[in-house]
Amino acid sequence: MSIEHIVEGLERREPAALARAISLVENQRDGFERLLSHVHARLGQGGTRRIGITGPPGAGKSTLTERLIQQFRAQGLGVGVVAVDPTSPFTGGALLGDRIRMESASLDPRVFIRSMATRGAHGGLATTTAEVADLLEAFGFERVLIETVGVGQTELDVARTAESTVLALVPESGDGIQTLKAGVMEIADIYVINKSDRPGADKLRQEVEVMLGIRRGNAFRHVAPHHTPEAVKGGRGRSRAVEGGEWDPPVLATIASQGDGVAELVAALDRHYLHLQQSGKLVARRRQRLAERTRAALARAVHQWIAEDTRAEELLARRLDEVADGRRSPYDVAAEILDQVRTGAPR
Amino acid sequence: MSIEHIVEGLERREPAALARAISLVENQRDGFERLLSHVHARLGQGGTRRIGITGPPGAGKSTLTERLIQQFRAQGLGVGVVAVDPTSPFTGGALLGDRIRMESASLDPRVFIRSMATRGAHGGLATTTAEVADLLEAFGFERVLIETVGVGQTELDVARTAESTVLALVPESGDGIQTLKAGVMEIADIYVINKSDRPGADKLRQEVEVMLGIRRGNAFRHVAPHHTPEAVKGGRGRSRAVEGGEWDPPVLATIASQGDGVAELVAALDRHYLHLQQSGKLVARRRQRLAERTRAALARAVHQWIAEDTRAEELLARRLDEVADGRRSPYDVAAEILDQVRTGAPR
Repeated sequence: MSIEHIVEGLERREPAALARAISLVENQRDGFERLLSHVHARLGQGGTRRIGITGPPGAGKSTLTERLIQQFRAQGLGVGVVAVDPTSPFTGGALLGDRIRMESASLDPRVFIRSMATRGAHGGLATTTAEVADLLEAFGFERVLIETVGVGQTELDVARTAESTVLALVPESGDGIQTLKAGVMEIADIYVINKSDRPGADKLRQEVEVMLGIRRGNAFRHVAPHHTPEAVKGGRGRSRAVEGGEWDPPVLATIASQGDGVAELVAALDRHYLHLQQSGKLVARRRQRLAERTRAALARAVHQWIAEDTRAEELLARRLDEVADGRRSPYDVAAEILDQVRTGAPR
Repeated sequence: MSIEHIVEGLERREPAALARAISLVENQRDGFERLLSHVHARLGQGGTRRIGITGPPGAGKSTLTERLIQQFRAQGLGVGVVAVDPTSPFTGGALLGDRIRMESASLDPRVFIRSMATRGAHGGLATTTAEVADLLEAFGFERVLIETVGVGQTELDVARTAESTVLALVPESGDGIQTLKAGVMEIADIYVINKSDRPGADKLRQEVEVMLGIRRGNAFRHVAPHHTPEAVKGGRGRSRAVEGGEWDPPVLATIASQGDGVAELVAALDRHYLHLQQSGKLVARRRQRLAERTRAALARAVHQWIAEDTRAEELLARRLDEVADGRRSPYDVAAEILDQVRTGAPR
């Protein structure tokens, strides 16, 4: 199937073309950037929204994703899902299980679920994930869910490719939120305390609220009215644009396995999107993401250029004896190679 | 403190100089590659051995590390430890806790333990980890332990920087070894079933043995004699160089919290090192690692060169409107920038 055929297939909404396109991009096969260039012209028009869902293993992200799919389908929207697990093959097994569980959803032609391997993601997993999300958008899905397990740097980068990011926590999330790095808490636009019927849900919610208050220079942040178990159960979180056009991230309570609080999550996502539109952040962030994508593509192109320059490897092979016996360092040789590649052949 | 002062301080074995050197390298501050160049000339002479310890969260790697420190100290050897957690800030909390637990060990001047953050590791966490290990070797530690949590791609890359890699598993490692990606099992030189007094230890050990047998084209791999609970308890694993100079990875049983099986692990590490020496792999792998280091340094240098070329960002800024409205793609602009940087200024 040529790139042109794949592009046509995407336009005709053929699932086989989509699957093929994703494999091409995921494995960075010949022509994948040409495909993405074609696709790029079709983006940002249909009002597709990208939603990131992240959190520690066991937070119930997959169940939450399933429930969101149901809600969006009930609204008549098509949903594409990229599930990424960069952390561990140990949890990879769980993801695969979830995927099988979700398969009932994927019998619906307006739902497409793809698990992504992390191997060979030259130029970064976040870039590849965003590129797969591009394909899902170009295919015509109105909602693209990006699910990542774990909340390390890689996952944060992946989550940042979405317009709205949901951080799912559960009462048993280890030692509470103290163990969360600052960066993790800052990425989320919406906090979800899932499995909120379990002991400790109320305490976790308070901790998140206090943490958000501290971040915003207001240690109390109207926490009081939300302390009641009822508020936790009902999942009534505030989310309004506060003074200065800032977004005040709501802390919602859900029991995804029963569907509790999921409608509220969808409503919060709608409010967040509206906030992004009205504040001008939607356009600004999109530009920023496109600039980042260009830098990533540049880094990849540079990498490929150096890899294809046979003189680099030749010089390295010639110098390796001296590096091994300590006469030269890897850094000296790297500088020498760069110098040669730069001055050698300006085409 | 100038680079020269730090180098002198390392030679005089001043802990403050070591701490300073590590911070410099970890944060890639000005002159860090010059420091590493200095250090490089001193490496590979004192017989320092690098040992990687990896495995899923909860496998007891830190306790195992603690026990190894004790064993090596009893042999009169100095021990440097780099603990890396690239997976998640959720387990990051645990690592920090472990570090405090280990502090008793670090009152000993011949033990140095460093937890490494994963932020800002341009050129890859594995490279930075190996560079920190270089500093520990240059400081004169005879054993350098590299501990990583999780077994994703990043952790594998980190583990590969060591000469011997230990994969620690526990009976409750999720769904058993089926969930392990092929690459994970292949990196280990020594397998440790830790917490081997727990239910399921025997079964896990059998699974690992069978998997190793399949890998070596021998589905049975003399599994039978090791099935007995006794063998598991005692941690008697074979590890001998089999035909063709191949290493036959032993599967050991430990209860690190009680110190059981740790002496056997040290013995297996000794046998593995001897195998590497006698088979010529030690020299070959060292050359391979140095080649990889040079490539990593080159990638970093290229990255920096492009980042410092103001024309790249200028052109990106000029093209961003067209990228945003779909007339150009990020990939077209990346190609254009590369072209300009390459042809523009061959110095």
